[in-house]
Amino acid sequence: MTDMTPNIPEVLAEVTALFERYEKALAEKDVDVLDDTFWNSPLTIRYAMHENGYGFDEIHQHRVRRPKGPGIKEKRLRLEIMTLGRDFATTNLEFKIRDKDLIGRQSQTWVRFPDVGWKVVAAHVSTMDKAPLW
Amino acid sequence: MTDMTPNIPEVLAEVTALFERYEKALAEKDVDVLDDTFWNSPLTIRYAMHENGYGFDEIHQHRVRRPKGPGIKEKRLRLEIMTLGRDFATTNLEFKIRDKDLIGRQSQTWVRFPDVGWKVVAAHVSTMDKAPLW
Repeated sequence: MTDMTPNIPEVLAEVTALFERYEKALAEKDVDVLDDTFWNSPLTIRYAMHENGYGFDEIHQHRVRRPKGPGIKEKRLRLEIMTLGRDFATTNLEFKIRDKDLIGRQSQTWVRFPDVGWKVVAAHVSTMDKAPLW
Repeated sequence: MTDMTPNIPEVLAEVTALFERYEKALAEKDVDVLDDTFWNSPLTIRYAMHENGYGFDEIHQHRVRRPKGPGIKEKRLRLEIMTLGRDFATTNLEFKIRDKDLIGRQSQTWVRFPDVGWKVVAAHVSTMDKAPLW
């Protein structure tokens, strides 16, 4: 059976460093690092705030089209990075959206592949609704 | 190294069955099945449309508080279930929100634990914004 021990310190440190590298690349619109962070596969999915990207190529196109700028994250409210064993991790970041009275959420699922190492295989970024829709 | 072969048929079948069991439980508000689907850990996270649940207990409270009813999913638009190796899976469902001109997205990260089997360790449900915020 695969060991699923949570938050082995050196694994957590590895994923945290990759997470922060991605956040820096988002702020700087460094498309090479953004691309390098995601699994280069048609199976990779990234739900963004106002678009759904299916497959690496579509996600890449969304990156290229995004305007430069300071990015939408004004302030981190809560960051939770969790690793399970040596090959799986999730990151969940709750943040204040810049210049708006809105909360954003960013979730990533990371997998360590034998050939290419840690990659994001699924991501979901959204604005939290202020109240139930019903 | 852990085998990360995508979509081994019997693994995909297993996760698909568990996914459908969860969807049925959501529609019927079967809290026992909803609870049984999620990892019973303070590390589990569920970002819902208008609330963020940190840890199994908070997620459980959100389940209990949710009103009964037909649920928010009027129609599935696209469902992608992906497994990697034998211990890891993601599900991503895009759906039309009932009675609203809105798209919803539901993402789940599943892990197979040696002791308790397949569980959702992270989930994110949101409404897609109609246009960029900037």
